[in-house]
Amino acid sequence: MGRIGVDLYPLRTGVPLAEVDSFGRFLGGSPANVAVAAARLGRRVAMVTRTGADPFGAYLRAQLGAFGVDARWAGEVPGLATPLTFCEIFPPDDFPLYFYRAPKAPDLEIRPEELDLDAVRGARVFWMTGTGLSEEPSRAATLAALEARTEARVEARVEARTEGRAEGLAAASGITVFDLDWRPTLWREGPGPSYERALAHATVAVGNAEECAIATGEGEPRAAARALIDAGVELAVVKRGPAGVLAVHRDGATAEVPPVPVEVVNGLGAGDAFGGALCHGLLAGWDLARTMRYANAAGAIVASRLACSSAMPYPDEVEEVLGRAVDE
Amino acid sequence: MGRIGVDLYPLRTGVPLAEVDSFGRFLGGSPANVAVAAARLGRRVAMVTRTGADPFGAYLRAQLGAFGVDARWAGEVPGLATPLTFCEIFPPDDFPLYFYRAPKAPDLEIRPEELDLDAVRGARVFWMTGTGLSEEPSRAATLAALEARTEARVEARVEARTEGRAEGLAAASGITVFDLDWRPTLWREGPGPSYERALAHATVAVGNAEECAIATGEGEPRAAARALIDAGVELAVVKRGPAGVLAVHRDGATAEVPPVPVEVVNGLGAGDAFGGALCHGLLAGWDLARTMRYANAAGAIVASRLACSSAMPYPDEVEEVLGRAVDE
Repeated sequence: MGRIGVDLYPLRTGVPLAEVDSFGRFLGGSPANVAVAAARLGRRVAMVTRTGADPFGAYLRAQLGAFGVDARWAGEVPGLATPLTFCEIFPPDDFPLYFYRAPKAPDLEIRPEELDLDAVRGARVFWMTGTGLSEEPSRAATLAALEARTEARVEARVEARTEGRAEGLAAASGITVFDLDWRPTLWREGPGPSYERALAHATVAVGNAEECAIATGEGEPRAAARALIDAGVELAVVKRGPAGVLAVHRDGATAEVPPVPVEVVNGLGAGDAFGGALCHGLLAGWDLARTMRYANAAGAIVASRLACSSAMPYPDEVEEVLGRAVDE
Repeated sequence: MGRIGVDLYPLRTGVPLAEVDSFGRFLGGSPANVAVAAARLGRRVAMVTRTGADPFGAYLRAQLGAFGVDARWAGEVPGLATPLTFCEIFPPDDFPLYFYRAPKAPDLEIRPEELDLDAVRGARVFWMTGTGLSEEPSRAATLAALEARTEARVEARVEARTEGRAEGLAAASGITVFDLDWRPTLWREGPGPSYERALAHATVAVGNAEECAIATGEGEPRAAARALIDAGVELAVVKRGPAGVLAVHRDGATAEVPPVPVEVVNGLGAGDAFGGALCHGLLAGWDLARTMRYANAAGAIVASRLACSSAMPYPDEVEEVLGRAVDE
């Protein structure tokens, strides 16, 4: 659930935007990319979002469909243009973004009363991002969806206990991920209390080191992971870039995974590939280390490619990178 | 003086925007195109405008320079993004536009106190458009520039009379063009009294049949031209598309020019090519019919090409089309 837009990427890299003559167009927006990444790995995915009532909105719905993401909850908001994002591509680590989301992105117009809460409750994984909390009515809708998830999880546990079944299975299909996804330019003030409320409902928090620091006030990765768990989640995942990934579970399990060495072409979208693969691993019930290695490999693949959504890897591509990493 | 932006044009034509995969980038914005058109015809041109303080603004300034248009009065407005325009290209006559100018285009932030009024007074031709009147402070700045033009013209006439020189020459170098350029999506209400004030200061009004009708309330081209003259201008030019061009001078001279037969690729920018060539003809002191034929040919050339600004013709290209028209 969250933002979607058109990414316009220079068809040449290493060139300032002022010198770019032509652009390729791609489906974009972090949660949209995550949805595509999970679909590529074979998961059944739908997206709750909004576009403008314009040709770019039609393009995005068609793209979601082509990528195997159900777009039935990706409606139109008349009067607001579908957002655009331009990027500059300076490998290995400089990818400035330029957002055209004024006066307001349609995806911030998702209203609580429009949610299909049965579908939100029924999903085995629900993914939302910090940007959805940046403005009303999207903030209220995102929090309403999170509350519905918590209710469903509690109900499932009570039911399992009543029927004498293991609670683990219910928990495994009640995964709610908060992608901290902090984009300062999209916020008027700081993250504020909506982040705390979202963390109280989420079972997984994922973010890069900076995002975790902003959400928790803790700059050190282990301390930040601990703070995220204290705020309510079961699993905290800190993406540390060149320092790899740290995952800490409330039950004490920890995984630290080194980065996959890769020639970076465009770092944008790598985190979203990681996210889609994280969902895949969590749904598969893999252990923490395996899930993190897999997600890390998926991210590395996208970083080595120019595009984002259309660059999301298939399972055999991830397996190949993992195999190579073992061989080396 | 007026708007500027980045045009993003599909690299394929006849395809809905929803199916376009890549876009070419061009300098755009009607008065910016007119400036380029006049420069291509050998005129010394400068542009008063504003861009965002971003890479697209840098691109536009660089492009103006490359086209030979002085960009010293094309400053930056921090906090506003350089506007974008997408188009769909369905030849021969359907070219929908999608503007990204929210929350406000930097070119509407031109302030009266920032104008170099000596330069505005000193120009032999001054060109402004209706869009510049759509919002403050641009409206006040545009009207201030127009008032400065009128003052300079009156002074030049008085001086000529005092010194016993012909007034004609002073008038010829005091050309002020109002391009009616009506873009309903850029206005909150109708054109209103600012159009009347601008017409009172302009010496030339130019627009397509619809724009002339909106400015005057007269749907019939001759009646609209008459009404524009009654509103203050010396020369009214009505671009009638497939019906050619009608020009009516206050002194009674009239020219009607048929369209130049051409295979239309992209009609956008044809009117701006016409405008740049109109300035060229007026400065050269050509008679009305010659000026209109020349401007018409320049417009036809751009209509036969995909791009706008970069498609503006050189004099030999216009001459060639005019020669062909005579031969046929």
